[in-house]
Amino acid sequence: MYGLIGKMRATPGKREDLLQLLLEATDSMPGCLNYIVARDPADTTAIWVTEVWVDAASHKASLNRPDVQAAIAKARPMIAGFDFQFETEPAGGYGLDQP
Amino acid sequence: MYGLIGKMRATPGKREDLLQLLLEATDSMPGCLNYIVARDPADTTAIWVTEVWVDAASHKASLNRPDVQAAIAKARPMIAGFDFQFETEPAGGYGLDQP
Repeated sequence: MYGLIGKMRATPGKREDLLQLLLEATDSMPGCLNYIVARDPADTTAIWVTEVWVDAASHKASLNRPDVQAAIAKARPMIAGFDFQFETEPAGGYGLDQP
Repeated sequence: MYGLIGKMRATPGKREDLLQLLLEATDSMPGCLNYIVARDPADTTAIWVTEVWVDAASHKASLNRPDVQAAIAKARPMIAGFDFQFETEPAGGYGLDQP
């Protein structure tokens, strides 16, 4: 499995719009086991995204989907920056039993 | 919902043992929607744990369960430290539709 843990910051006043966009963009992509979007309670501009994919290739392929490309184009002006993004190797746990 | 994103470091040579213990300890706890354990590919001692709970009270209650207390006692000598642990407010996404 391939995982990503990232924290991004929205431009002023745009966190909710960006959050909704991320939520809409993530409906059942091939190879995606988990994609969770969260507010940061300590920073009103920040959004956490944690992802688990079958493998890195599935994640990479998703970025070329027309719907994902469209979402990225729509999101870009609302993103002020990324604090970080870490790659992980998920080993298992609870909530990964999607097909 | 209530989320946690944390990175811990195992004592030398103990990452796999600690990882297995975390995986075994996380089988369907009340209020737990998601609990994913991952290796850090860039640091052979590091483990990421991302959690989503119905609310903070469910998470707090889980820490008092005898099985969780036993797992914590077993894990403690294998934990060298925590790099960080962030609280989040998960808004939704994919892979959260457990009962």
